[in-house]
This record gives sequence, structure tokens and C-alpha cells, in this order.
Amino acid sequence: MSELKDLLESVQRGDTTVADALHQIKKAPFQDIGFAKVDLHRKALQGYPEVIYGAGKTETQMEGIITTMLQNRQERILITRLNAEAASYLESKFELTYHSEARVGIVGSMPSPSGLGKIVVATGGTSDIPVAEEAALTAEIHGNEVVRLYDVGVAGIHRLFSHMDEIMDASVIIAIAGMEGALASVIGGMADCPVIAVPTGVGYGASFGGVSALLSMLNSCASGVSVVNIDNGFGAGYLAGMMNHMGKK
Amino acid sequence: MSELKDLLESVQRGDTTVADALHQIKKAPFQDIGFAKVDLHRKALQGYPEVIYGAGKTETQMEGIITTMLQNRQERILITRLNAEAASYLESKFELTYHSEARVGIVGSMPSPSGLGKIVVATGGTSDIPVAEEAALTAEIHGNEVVRLYDVGVAGIHRLFSHMDEIMDASVIIAIAGMEGALASVIGGMADCPVIAVPTGVGYGASFGGVSALLSMLNSCASGVSVVNIDNGFGAGYLAGMMNHMGKK
Amino acid sequence: MSELKDLLESVQRGDTTVADALHQIKKAPFQDIGFAKVDLHRKALQGYPEVIYGAGKTETQMEGIITTMLQNRQERILITRLNAEAASYLESKFELTYHSEARVGIVGSMPSPSGLGKIVVATGGTSDIPVAEEAALTAEIHGNEVVRLYDVGVAGIHRLFSHMDEIMDASVIIAIAGMEGALASVIGGMADCPVIAVPTGVGYGASFGGVSALLSMLNSCASGVSVVNIDNGFGAGYLAGMMNHMGKK
Amino acid sequence: MSELKDLLESVQRGDTTVADALHQIKKAPFQDIGFAKVDLHRKALQGYPEVIYGAGKTETQMEGIITTMLQNRQERILITRLNAEAASYLESKFELTYHSEARVGIVGSMPSPSGLGKIVVATGGTSDIPVAEEAALTAEIHGNEVVRLYDVGVAGIHRLFSHMDEIMDASVIIAIAGMEGALASVIGGMADCPVIAVPTGVGYGASFGGVSALLSMLNSCASGVSVVNIDNGFGAGYLAGMMNHMGKK
Amino acid sequence: MSELKDLLESVQRGDTTVADALHQIKKAPFQDIGFAKVDLHRKALQGYPEVIYGAGKTETQMEGIITTMLQNRQERILITRLNAEAASYLESKFELTYHSEARVGIVGSMPSPSGLGKIVVATGGTSDIPVAEEAALTAEIHGNEVVRLYDVGVAGIHRLFSHMDEIMDASVIIAIAGMEGALASVIGGMADCPVIAVPTGVGYGASFGGVSALLSMLNSCASGVSVVNIDNGFGAGYLAGMMNHMGKK
Amino acid sequence: MSELKDLLESVQRGDTTVADALHQIKKAPFQDIGFAKVDLHRKALQGYPEVIYGAGKTETQMEGIITTMLQNRQERILITRLNAEAASYLESKFELTYHSEARVGIVGSMPSPSGLGKIVVATGGTSDIPVAEEAALTAEIHGNEVVRLYDVGVAGIHRLFSHMDEIMDASVIIAIAGMEGALASVIGGMADCPVIAVPTGVGYGASFGGVSALLSMLNSCASGVSVVNIDNGFGAGYLAGMMNHMGKK
Amino acid sequence: MSELKDLLESVQRGDTTVADALHQIKKAPFQDIGFAKVDLHRKALQGYPEVIYGAGKTETQMEGIITTMLQNRQERILITRLNAEAASYLESKFELTYHSEARVGIVGSMPSPSGLGKIVVATGGTSDIPVAEEAALTAEIHGNEVVRLYDVGVAGIHRLFSHMDEIMDASVIIAIAGMEGALASVIGGMADCPVIAVPTGVGYGASFGGVSALLSMLNSCASGVSVVNIDNGFGAGYLAGMMNHMGKK
Amino acid sequence: MSELKDLLESVQRGDTTVADALHQIKKAPFQDIGFAKVDLHRKALQGYPEVIYGAGKTETQMEGIITTMLQNRQERILITRLNAEAASYLESKFELTYHSEARVGIVGSMPSPSGLGKIVVATGGTSDIPVAEEAALTAEIHGNEVVRLYDVGVAGIHRLFSHMDEIMDASVIIAIAGMEGALASVIGGMADCPVIAVPTGVGYGASFGGVSALLSMLNSCASGVSVVNIDNGFGAGYLAGMMNHMGKK
Repeated sequence: MSELKDLLESVQRGDTTVADALHQIKKAPFQDIGFAKVDLHRKALQGYPEVIYGAGKTETQMEGIITTMLQNRQERILITRLNAEAASYLESKFELTYHSEARVGIVGSMPSPSGLGKIVVATGGTSDIPVAEEAALTAEIHGNEVVRLYDVGVAGIHRLFSHMDEIMDASVIIAIAGMEGALASVIGGMADCPVIAVPTGVGYGASFGGVSALLSMLNSCASGVSVVNIDNGFGAGYLAGMMNHMGKK
Repeated sequence: MSELKDLLESVQRGDTTVADALHQIKKAPFQDIGFAKVDLHRKALQGYPEVIYGAGKTETQMEGIITTMLQNRQERILITRLNAEAASYLESKFELTYHSEARVGIVGSMPSPSGLGKIVVATGGTSDIPVAEEAALTAEIHGNEVVRLYDVGVAGIHRLFSHMDEIMDASVIIAIAGMEGALASVIGGMADCPVIAVPTGVGYGASFGGVSALLSMLNSCASGVSVVNIDNGFGAGYLAGMMNHMGKK
Repeated sequence: MSELKDLLESVQRGDTTVADALHQIKKAPFQDIGFAKVDLHRKALQGYPEVIYGAGKTETQMEGIITTMLQNRQERILITRLNAEAASYLESKFELTYHSEARVGIVGSMPSPSGLGKIVVATGGTSDIPVAEEAALTAEIHGNEVVRLYDVGVAGIHRLFSHMDEIMDASVIIAIAGMEGALASVIGGMADCPVIAVPTGVGYGASFGGVSALLSMLNSCASGVSVVNIDNGFGAGYLAGMMNHMGKK
Repeated sequence: MSELKDLLESVQRGDTTVADALHQIKKAPFQDIGFAKVDLHRKALQGYPEVIYGAGKTETQMEGIITTMLQNRQERILITRLNAEAASYLESKFELTYHSEARVGIVGSMPSPSGLGKIVVATGGTSDIPVAEEAALTAEIHGNEVVRLYDVGVAGIHRLFSHMDEIMDASVIIAIAGMEGALASVIGGMADCPVIAVPTGVGYGASFGGVSALLSMLNSCASGVSVVNIDNGFGAGYLAGMMNHMGKK
Repeated sequence: MSELKDLLESVQRGDTTVADALHQIKKAPFQDIGFAKVDLHRKALQGYPEVIYGAGKTETQMEGIITTMLQNRQERILITRLNAEAASYLESKFELTYHSEARVGIVGSMPSPSGLGKIVVATGGTSDIPVAEEAALTAEIHGNEVVRLYDVGVAGIHRLFSHMDEIMDASVIIAIAGMEGALASVIGGMADCPVIAVPTGVGYGASFGGVSALLSMLNSCASGVSVVNIDNGFGAGYLAGMMNHMGKK
Repeated sequence: MSELKDLLESVQRGDTTVADALHQIKKAPFQDIGFAKVDLHRKALQGYPEVIYGAGKTETQMEGIITTMLQNRQERILITRLNAEAASYLESKFELTYHSEARVGIVGSMPSPSGLGKIVVATGGTSDIPVAEEAALTAEIHGNEVVRLYDVGVAGIHRLFSHMDEIMDASVIIAIAGMEGALASVIGGMADCPVIAVPTGVGYGASFGGVSALLSMLNSCASGVSVVNIDNGFGAGYLAGMMNHMGKK
Repeated sequence: MSELKDLLESVQRGDTTVADALHQIKKAPFQDIGFAKVDLHRKALQGYPEVIYGAGKTETQMEGIITTMLQNRQERILITRLNAEAASYLESKFELTYHSEARVGIVGSMPSPSGLGKIVVATGGTSDIPVAEEAALTAEIHGNEVVRLYDVGVAGIHRLFSHMDEIMDASVIIAIAGMEGALASVIGGMADCPVIAVPTGVGYGASFGGVSALLSMLNSCASGVSVVNIDNGFGAGYLAGMMNHMGKK
Repeated sequence: MSELKDLLESVQRGDTTVADALHQIKKAPFQDIGFAKVDLHRKALQGYPEVIYGAGKTETQMEGIITTMLQNRQERILITRLNAEAASYLESKFELTYHSEARVGIVGSMPSPSGLGKIVVATGGTSDIPVAEEAALTAEIHGNEVVRLYDVGVAGIHRLFSHMDEIMDASVIIAIAGMEGALASVIGGMADCPVIAVPTGVGYGASFGGVSALLSMLNSCASGVSVVNIDNGFGAGYLAGMMNHMGKK
């Protein structure tokens, strides 16, 4: 609101006309490129990445958005849900690194970690890895160090316990699992830090595309557990990074 | 089918008329008392209890069924889902022991254990105890020794692990939990014996009256886990007893 | 794990016998009082409250748990889902303050705030206040300063915007709403801090006891939003407090 | 019913035989072409378009229906859910304009706007545009002026507010969104005109193909909001046009 | 936005200080009475009623809100979901008329109709009448003439057809039905005006508390039909009134 | 439609004026008594009972409807979903027989059976009997002979098979079951006549108030099985009677 | 059971040995061809067709079943859910007529109608025709005359009313509709004969693959309506034929 | 826990250093090969097969896992959910037998049966055979004799009864069915041994991908029935084998 105060004082001083003030108040910090409104209000925060949700956008739409972002001097861009074909197209236009398993494209380089501690990304099985990698890369591009613990599901709980140290040391944990989704509860019962649970669509039959894991995670009796949407690796990675920078902004 | 063979031979010998044979084939091993058909075909198995599902039956209906069973020399009768009022009424008519928490009434005495080993009945929380007691008493009246491990939910997993010995020694385990239902999976991953999972309606919000626990248990990645209906302590106790007598019948 | 190391060294030195070591490894940091296992492993962290989930527990069960906790010198105890009758009973036994709207009982005094910043607890309507108070009291007993913004639902969005300052200043925000649950998304789009969304069962018809709000919150397009169970004010308050102490433990 | 009166008077006068009257009463104002009954009862209202729901109809079925309509001097025909291949076929037979994004084909020219005011069509994201275009084109062919506001979702609520003028000026607003569907509530809380909410199948995970947005919209606390089927752009555009001509028919 | 322009010009002229301008921009048109924010921004529109959603509000909360509204010279107040006890209390405090079937309380007198035409409120059965009366009274207090057609469900379709004239003459129709909800589709196929469908929780078994009717109405093949929440008579009556005043504001 | 022909001829002859004809065409064969429209179009079919669905109707509403029916010389009236209190009230006004288990009231005497054969009403358990009695009484008042086979569920399939003769002889079978609903399939696989399946809300847990039985019955692989709503004994009895009089009307 | 009596008498006479009798009792009236058990117990009923459910069966499996049936002198065979490729294969092996829209194959000729009256097959739209044709052909091969009324949905209810005569004359009506499924209720309210409702998966969005129509039909307030599975044209046609032959077997 | 005791004693004796002991306690009995943790803790039980869940694993991932297992001298490996392409690849690398219908690959030879009795695998239809074969092969590779009873669904219940002997003789029965899933209840009512019910996704419409069968099975009134996930043939076969070896380990 301090910008509004500055503006009003400028009007009062006569430095800004009423028409200009009205225009500035209404002018949103984004650029309208027809099919999308590219958000630019964070550009002042140097190094903070912009994010494009690739699903349902054409290659040329993404190209247009990236071009607009780069013209506004965005250093890093994260593109999620980017399929291989669109990645190839964008690689021919920009310096883009494509992580095929995570279906994530990255323009620009990874920043150095600047968070409070480490973010642990744990999965119940190997099939959950694509979601985990989306989460891990999202956390990394937002300046976090990530420890990956994959295939540590509760059906063989000794696998999980052999990583007790990493779990007890974590700043934030992202627990990713399909099927019965018990991983989040068990980790939540072990750890003292926030646990972000990500249900995945991995499974069959009564897993109902992730609903079983989602419900299980929402009902976790362990304190400190919250849940994001099924397969939402990005959301978990972003939130984990936000938590890992608490008190630092 | 050997009875059928005997009957046919009796017809062949002329010891039984065709009309009588027809009658016997059709005559089912139960007694029709109007509002219910009391099953008597197990009476030859001395000591095997009969079961009455009390929900939705009036006191006089239950009285009639018990009377018929006793007249057919049934030694033990288990009445599940028996509310306190009906229990009082029946106690005035028969020698009935009422277990109020489990809402179970028992006519006759408990038999000595005759199974292969011990049945562990474990619950996630204290609110699951009524279902657990229904399971435990059912198992006991069918001749099984029961070990009760209550309030060992995964949110404080050290509680469960302090009972590792009982779990590793069990012949069959009944894992009872509401909310996220992860107990079955974790126990299933630890034990080498069959695990019968019982979801309970304990919880609130997205537990949806036990659906969350049910789905979690059905999706268990641990081998050897199967599931019965929500709150079906009886079914679990009966099945556990059956397994614990495998090779003994 | 350092305790385990100490123990092993004690065994090595001969100060502890193998039998004692085995016993100590198995002995979990809780006290078994029959119907419940009272968790005591946090008692070393002076001032950290213990929590009792009151639903489904009898007055005497709660009395027993509180007595055990106090005997173990627990300073503060938070009892959630505590109905008025049980509260009266406990008030006759302990120094307990009962917050009837939140259905929360507190033994001991509130600590001074020690977090990074303020936790905003916002609700869509007045009917969401009980859940909000559960969240707020939980956060306060864990050492957090709470700002309450009630009845700021999106159907009259100017109400929300008149509190823009509190929202922009928050360390963590808890957004509580029933019906369409849009509050979490709108706040998530305004704020730069983590937002914990709590769906409530407030509403009728197609609100389906909170499912509509739950789904809406899980699908939030705003970054930094995660969700806890329907009506889970405690979980949100606990997690918010955990986040607000990041880097401080 | 005035036609019935005319007919009865004609019978009374002897101008029409009973048989003919019976025949006319039964003869519905449509033409049966075997696989479909082409509705013709609006042909008197010159300029009012006929609508063909293209999904599940073969190219030749649609050709037959269009031919029948044109023979009955229909000036404008709107074909919804028309895929590209069928559009190509029909373009080779008729003067048809195909809008590929909206999957809408139009025979005849757009009429001049004749409504009370402007219809605003707003979407939460770019992926909702196909549904929005179906709505917009439907409104336009029914004689309405349409203002398109695309990608103004609540996660970046300043985007929406920069269009406050268009929203406050609208005669009717169509709010189209997937995922959490909060757009309808926020617009409903800002505007004083009817808001038609259209949930879309855009999203993943717990969006459940539009169910989440549908529930959110049905539960909107904002007054003046009603909802049509998931992805039903046509229904929204038609109803908006009907409202925008209230008092004019 | 014109008020903002006036304010800025006032700042420019020096008539308003920057501090005052900031204050006015932030000051929302409502009064905060602690547990609720009473909306007052419509008070300039003389005669327009304020609405209180009674469910989940205590008698004293409602008393406080009404008092605040009356102090701000609100002429008419509509209280929905008002139970009989609370109505008695409020009747002892204010001049309130209570419609027990609709569970609606009204402070002030009904205005004269000022709309374009008549609003028809039709129900499938007698059990739907409470919802219908909520809709009808809401429409009436907003200045609309209402025609009630009750118990005209499609299972005896001649009942509906005997009211063909009222249906053809309506400006807007509210179709209220539980069970199969077909009334909305049939009326929608007959009428040329907007139809607002209200599913009700009337029914049993697979009516699932109104879900069956809701789905049926959402899937209506008739054009011009939109749907509000289950049992949302208020929403339907309000929207119908809004439509019936199109072009009049 | 022959009445319409008569009317038109009467107009042609001049025996009926146009206005009268219009009036007659519009006049539906029911009597409007304010809160309900009492259907009278079957009064010519002497002996055919009228039906009142008692749920959600007040005692005085039912009294009014019955009075109107009796004034129109209705011989028999069936009132379903009639609770005991309302039954007492009506018994003080009319000659009504109340069947408390079925919650059915009957005015007038039962007719002699006039159908093609016998209708078998079978239930899986004793708890299904109320629904079965509603079905049986409905069939009987419509002139059918009913054979009751109660408590013949598939869990003790010999009980069912001891009634093979009745099943093979039936004209129509009504199969009523809750829980797993398998009775309809097994009977459908045995019998050669139409089977009407009625799911009941009997059960607990994953029976979901009859949904499990409903789905099971809809998926029956046996030919000749159709399904009515959960607990809809009336609908099944009515339809069975209709089938049992095929070729007789 | 008379066959059993004959058999027992034969044993009594010594004409049949006990071993043979046992064998005959156990020998079911079907032929086991490895992957399927071909049902032959109806072969005595000359002209009665056998039915093969083609979905999920390979071409060679169907060939084997048909060959076995023909070897047992089956005159007519109906194959449902038969895709075009498998149909081509079978046409090269047998005299098979393939109805591609209904995905039905028929071996043998259609019998003359032998039922009580005509079966009306009505659909709401043109997209429901495949299910309708499956129903109609099934009814025809079972000896029924079928009247097809397609595209008579309630959104244009005059289309349905122009066929009032056929509906009033029908012996049985099959009402087939997707989307809101109101057709069954409206027809049920008009006709005096049994109505078999078939929901179809036609539609989009909240039609949920036929669930909306299914629920609507189950909740029909019209008497005489029962429901079969979604898209189950065969089941409806078979049951309609059974009803149309009531009293004739 | 005896290994822990040995280890502690070894520490006490000085044979093992504290560091080594700590290391051994943490070192889980599996081998980490990067993308998966191969479980080796059963290798001591010679002949016990290892299991790979093939779904979602690449050919090279499976190759790596199998190679590691063989290097650890695993005699038998069972690969479930193995598609044909991956099977071809693995056949080129290992001695693998591929069962295409069951989508099961087996490395090594089948062991001799060592169980208490026979496991019956019964299916309702031919389409359930793939799931049945997965169950049967799983049971066989774990040392059980399997009796296959396919296509014995309850719609033709004589088919099932002709196999009464096998059912009465079984040690454990696996009942596999889609659609209405009644097979499990009927078998459960006939047999005296544990019945493992496996719902399958076979069916259409309201079978909802196996949900109908799943619910039916969970609600089985027959004692001794438990349920595994939809299509989980492996889980059923594994559990059946475990039961069939009760008292033998």
C-alpha cells in the first residue's frame, strides 16, 4: 500500500495528474499478450524465477510468454508439465534444459541454496519419481538444497528407517506416495518439521487415480502434515521453498 | 455330498421312499420360526458357537432365536451389535454376559484356545477399541488366544515398534484403524503372517465415516493384507479364528 | 540416534547389560495407562504443550491422561473437541480454562509469543468461527501471536481488501471457509507467505459437509497453499506455529 | 394456445373437419427426417438461429439436418461440438464458417447486437478459452455484444480488478473457470448483474474433470450466480442472450 | 470507479489530505460488529432489502445485525433459514413477520411489484413447498409479482399442462423439484424465458439428499435452464428478481 | 385421445362452444385442494386404489386428500410411509387399517386376487421385512396373490433352495436385500420370470445406505432383472402387480 | 424338481445306479468347452435364442461357442457388444447378420411376433439409438413386435406428445435417455404399462457417463418404472419381451 | 529381534565396535541400485520367490532388479503386470516364462506344492480369467496346488453347484468377479474355509470399473470373506498361499 501513498502524495504535489494516477492504479503489473496475461510484478526481486504451467498451452503460446518474460529481464523460468515435443521446440528457440522424467523445462541456471536447511523429497515407490522430480527441481530453482529419498514406502518400513538421519535433520519434508499414501503419516510421526504430503495417481483399482492416497493424507493423525493436489509436485516444491526461507525475506 | 449318496443308497435299498427322499433333500438344516430361519447345520460340531447379528432385531425376536438354539443344544451363542437395553432384557431370560464396550453378548462360557498360535488385535487409537473388542471376543469364543495392542497408531510409530515381538510372533493380526488407516500397511510390512484390516468409522471430515481408511487399506502395498467391511470386528475375528485353525478341522 | 550411540557405548563399557540395553531400546518414551499410551518424549522441551484429542474419550479417560501428564510435569495441556459437559467435569478436577465456541480446554497459561511474525486466522463467515478459534488457540498455546480476521468471505470482497495490510504483513495465514472455499485462493493470490487452507462443514446442499470447500482448496491455483482436513483447526494452528518458528528450533 | 382457439373456431365454422383438426393438433411443428426430428417451430421468428449439437452426429446426419433447415428458410444455423473433419465436410456443402478453438460452425452471418447491454465472458485461465468462445459465439449469433476477458483468474486477482469497469458495466457476466472455480464467486461479489457460472474440465488431480469447479460454483455465497453443466459454453451463451433481451421479446 | 476519480480530484484540489484519502479508500462500506461485518453499501438504494442468512447465527448475533441495519435506516430486512425459536425471540424485539413454512422472517413491508413481468414458482410436489416459499418471498421482497404453481410434477404431466398459460406468460420461471428433477427440463422445453432450477433434498434412497435432482437439472437438454444449490430458494428468488428487473436499474 | 375426438365432434355439432371446449381441454382430471392436486382420472376404473405418499405430508393434509378421494367415491386408498402418530390420527377419522411394520395404512378392503399367477416377495434378511411388507401390501391391494419368502439370503443359500418350488412357480418375483444385494442375481439366475430388485438401506459401513446393494443389483448378470429405488417397496409391488395383470386390462 | 423325482423313482426301480444318479444330479445342463460353459438347458424350448455377450471375448472364443450351440441345434443366436472386426470374422464362418449401429450379430432368422402387444422403444436423442437398437433387436429375436420412437426427448416435449397414440397402445415401453434422463418419468406419467428405463452414457460434464440419467430414472415418481444398467439395451429388450409374453409360457 | 541381541552381545564381548554396531543396525537388508531398493531379507528362506511389480517400471529397470536378485542367488522371481513388449525384452536376457493372459513373467521353475490343501480359484465369467491366472500363478510359485473353476457366475448357479466337491474340499478359495460380485457371497455361504474376494474391473455402466463388485464383496453377509483391491490377483494368490501354509513356517 506504500506505493499507493506515494502516488497520492504525487497527485497532491501536482507531480501526477488525476488521469495518470487513475491509469497507474488500474495498470496491473502484467503484460497482456492476447491469449495470456504475463505476470511481471516480481521482476524487481532479482533471481526469483517465473513459472509457466505448460499443460494446455501451445508451443507458440509458451514461446510468446517466455519471450515476454525474457524481454522483462527475467533470469530464470520454470516450465512445468512440458511434454517432450514442446520441449524440443522451445529448445530450438531458447537456452532451455529439459528434465524429461519430471517434464520440467528450465531457462537459466540454478541458484545457490539460500534456505534455512535441507528439503527432503521422499517417495513411496519408483513410480512416484516424476512427481518427486517436479517438486525437487521446483525447490532447487527457488534456492533450496534438496535431499532425494526415493522408494522408501511403508510396506518395507526398514527402508525408510535406514534414512532416519536425513528425516530428523530436514527443514521441510515432501512426502509423495500413491496407493495407500501412508508414507506421509509415518514420516509425520517421525519428524518434527512440516511435512507436505503429495498424493499421486500411481496405483490401480481402488486407488481411484490418487483419491485413496489423498484421503489418507488428509486424515493423517500426525501433526504438521498438510496436503496439496494429486500429482502437484510443483505446489509442494514451491511451498517447501517458501517455508525453508521463513524469516529470510 | 456324502449324505446325498447315503440317501440315494437308502432309496435303492428300499429303506427310504421316494417321497421321503425328496422331502429330505429339500428339508434344509434350519428351523423356520416365522420371522427368521435359525441355522442348525453346525450343531454336530460340538462347541462351535452360533452367531446372532443383533442390529435390527427386536428383543423378542432375539429371545426366540436364542430359545430355539438352546433347544437344539447349542453350547455357545455370540450376539453382536447388541445394545444395552436389549442386553438387559436378554440377561433377565438367559445366562448372558454383556460386554458393553464391544456391544457383544455371550451365552455360555469361553472355550479353551485351540488354535495354531496367537491372534494379535491392534488398534490405531482408543476410539477403535469397541470394534477391536468385538473382534477379540469373536476370536476368543471360537477358541483362539488373543493379544490386545491398543492405541499403537502410526502417528507415534515408536508405540507400535515397542510391540515388535508380539507382532513377529503372531499367527494372524487384525489391524483396526480409522482416519488414514495406515496401521494395516505398516503392520503388513513388518509381519510375515496374514493381516486382516478393519477400517473404522472413527474420525471426522474427510474420513467420510471410514471410507478413507477403507480405501487406504485396500490399496495397501504390503503383501498378505485383506480387508473387511467398515467396523466389521466380528468378520475379522471370525476369519482370524478360521485362519488360526487351518489344517486343524 | 545419539541416545542409541550412548547406550551402545554403555554396553561396550559394561555399564549396561545386554538385557537392560534390549529393554531400553524397546521401552518407548511413553507411559502406558491401560486405555491409552501417554506420550512423554517431548517433556524435555520445557513449555511445549501436550495435546489431547477429546472426541471419543470419556471424562475419566481424559482425567487419567491429564493426571499422568501433570505427574510428568507437563506445563501446558491443550484439549480439543472437548464438549461442555466433559469440560465441567475436568474443571472440577484441574485448573482448566474452557473456550466453549472453540470447544477447547487449556490447562496452564498461554506462553509469550516467540515466533517469526504474526499468524493471521481468516474466515469466510461467522459460522466458521469455531474452527478458527480452535486454530487460533492452538497457535497461541504454541507461542504465536494471532490476528483474527473473521467474516471476510469473497462474496463481499471489499471486506477482505480492507485488511490488506494484515494479510501482507502475515508470517503465515490460515484461511478457513466452507461453501465454495474460495477464500484460500484469493488470499493465496494476494499474500507472499504460506497459506494453510481449512475447509469447514459449514453450508448445505452441494457443500456436502465440506467436500466442496475441500476440493476447491486442493485445486487452488495460487502458489503456497496447502490443505488440512475438514474442520481441522488444530492441525492448521499447529502447522502454522511450526512454520512461524522455522529456523528457531 | 391462441392457435388452438383459432382451430376450434374453424371446426365450429365448418371450415375444418374433425379429422383435419385432430391431425393438426397432433402434427408437431417439426419435420421427421428419420434419424432426427428437425425443429421448425421458430421459423416465424425471422433471424433467430437454429442450433445443432454436433457431438455424436455423423457428417451426413448433420448435412441432412442443415439441408432441412435451409429448405425451411432458416437464416442462421449454429453447430456446436463440431470437430474439424466434420467441419471440412460441411464447408464443402454449405457456406459455413468454422471456429476451430470453439469447435463451432456457423451458417449465415452474425446479426447486429440488439440486447440491453454487453455480455462479459471471463475466464480463469487460457485453457478455458475454448468453452468461452463457444459461449461468446452463441451469444453473438443471438444478437448480443460480447466483451471477452480471458485469463483473469483469482490467483492473480489484480488481473481481474484491472477490468473492474467492464465488470461493473456488464448486463450479464459469464464466468468460466476450472480447478477451484472461485472466479464466479469473486465476480458475483463484485457485480450487480446476473452471473452465469460455467465450470470447465480444465485441471488435474482433485479437479475431477470439472467437479471441483462445479461444486464451488454451486456453493457460491454471492447472490445472482447460477450454474450450467461442465463445459456448457453454449448453454451459458444462450441463457445470457435470453437475459440480455429481457423485456424485448 | 467514478468515486475514486472524485476522490483523487479532491486530493488534487487540496480538499482532501492524503491521509484522509487513504483512509477513505480503505474504509469499506460495512460496519464491523465483532462477530460479523454488516454490509451497508446498498443503503443509498432506498427500499432495497438487506438479507441475513440465519443458519448458524445465534439469536443475539441476529439481533445485533438487525439493530445495526435499522440504525443505518434499512427499510426491509429478509432473514432466511430462521427457525421458530429464534423467530419468537426476534418478534419480541422487532416488528418481524415470520413465515414458518419457508422459515423466513421479514422486517418491514413488502414493496409493490416493479418488474418486467411475473415470476412463476413451480414445484414438483407438496414437499418442495418450503423451498418454493423461500424463493417466492425473496422475489416478492425484491419487488416482483409471483405466481405459485405447486404440485405439478411430471409424473402426472396433465397437472403441469393445465397451467400452460401461466408458463407461457412468465417473465422468469423457478422450477423446484426433488427426486428425479425432471420438472426443470420439461418446463424448460415448454417456456421461452429463463428457467432457474432448484433441486431439493426431498426424496429417499438414491435421491441422495438432492444430488439426483441436481445432476438431472445440470444435464437438462432444454436451453435457458441454469441451476442453483440444493434447497437454495433464496438464491433462485434473488436471481429471478434480478432478471425480472433487467434494463430497469 | 378418443375423448378429444368426441369433444371436437361436439364442437362441430354445435353442442359445445369453443370456450367450453377450450376449458375442457385444459381442465385436468384432478381436483386442486390448495396444497395438493388430488388425482381423480382413474375413478372410472372401479376398485383401483388411489395411493398417497405419506412422507412429508401433515396429518391434516392427508385427511384432506383422503376426504376428497372418498367424496369422489374411491373404494380403496393406500397410504405409504405413514408413521404411527399420523396413523392414529387418521384412524380416528376414517376406517383405516394400519400395518405398522410396513408403515402402510389402508382404507377399504383388500380385493380378490385377479392376476395371472403369484407374486413372490423374497428378502435376504429379517431387517428387510418392512420394505417387503410395503411391497406385498401394495401388490395385494392391486389384486394380486403374494407369497412371502423372508430371510432367504445367499449367505445360507440352502435356505433359498428349500423354496425352489415357489420360485419356479412365480409369475413375478420381488427380490429385496441390503448389504451385498446378491439375492436378486441368484434368484434371477434360477427363475424364468421377471425379477424386480429392491435394494434396502439395511447394513452398515460400506453398504452406504443401500448404494452397495443398488449397484450390485444394477450389475446383475442374470436376465430379466430390473431395479427400483432403494427401499421402494411400493414401486416394486405396484410394478409387479402391473406385470401380473399383463394382457388383462 | 420333477426331473429329480423321476430320477429318484428310477433309482428305486433299479433302472439307474446310485453312481449314475449322483452323476446326473451333478451334471449341469451345459457343456464345458474349456474357456466357457455353454448353457444348453433351454434347447428344449424350440426357437428360443441363445445369447452371447461379445465384449471381452476373442473371435475364436465366440466361434467356439457358436459352433457348440449350433451343434446342439440352436436355431437362433444373438451376439451383443460385437465389434465390426469380430463380426467380419464370424460372417466368414457362419450365416450372421451384423447390425453395426447396435453392434449386434444375429445367427438365424427373426421369429414371428408372438407377444401380447407391441413394445415401444423410445429415445431422448439420436445418440441413444445404438442402445435402442440393441434393445429393439433383442426384443424382436425373442418374438416381439417393436415400435421405434427415436429423438423424442423432453426438451421438445411436443415431439413426444405427437406419438401419444403409440405410447397409450404399448404393451411395454423401453425409455432410453442420457443426460437428465427425464424421458422415463414423463413417459411413465403418461402410460399405463410397465416402463423399463435405460440410462445411457450419452452426454458430457455432469452426466458422469450415465450416472445422472441413472439416478434420475431410479428416482422417478411415476409408478411402473424400473431401471436396468447404463447402456444395457439387451437387458431391457429381454425383460420387455418376457413381460410381453406374460401368461403365455 | 534375536539378531539385535546377538549384535549387542557381540558389542559386549568387544567383537564389534560401537560404530560397526550402529552401522549394522541402520543397514537395512536391501541393496540400493539407484532407482529402486531391492529387498533381500528373505534370501535365507531358500526357494521363496521374489516379486517385481512390473507396472510403471522400464525394461531396463526390471533388468537391473532381476540381475541384482539373481546375483543374490534368488531362485525364483515373479514379475506381475508385465506387458508383452517388456516380456520379450526380458526373455532375451533371462530364462523367463511369460504367461500372456495373466501378464505374468516367471524366472525359475515352479516349486512342488507344500501347502495344507488345495487353493480353488473361481471366476464369475471368462473376462475375469486374466486376474484369476495372476492369482493362480502367484499361488503356484509360492508352493500351492491350484484348482481353477472359471465361468461359474451366479447368474447360472447350476454351473457353480456342479463343482460343489471342489469347493467343499478347498483349503482356501479365491472368488474373482466383476459386475455384481455376488460370487464371493454365494461361495462364502457354501464353503467352510477362508474366501478371498477379488473384485475385477470387468463390466460396464454402473459397474464403475469394479466399484460395484468391490462394495458387494465388502458387504458380504457370509462369514470368512475378506477382500483385496480391484484386479489384485497377486495379492489374493499371495495371501491364499500364506493361509495354506499356516502352521508350517
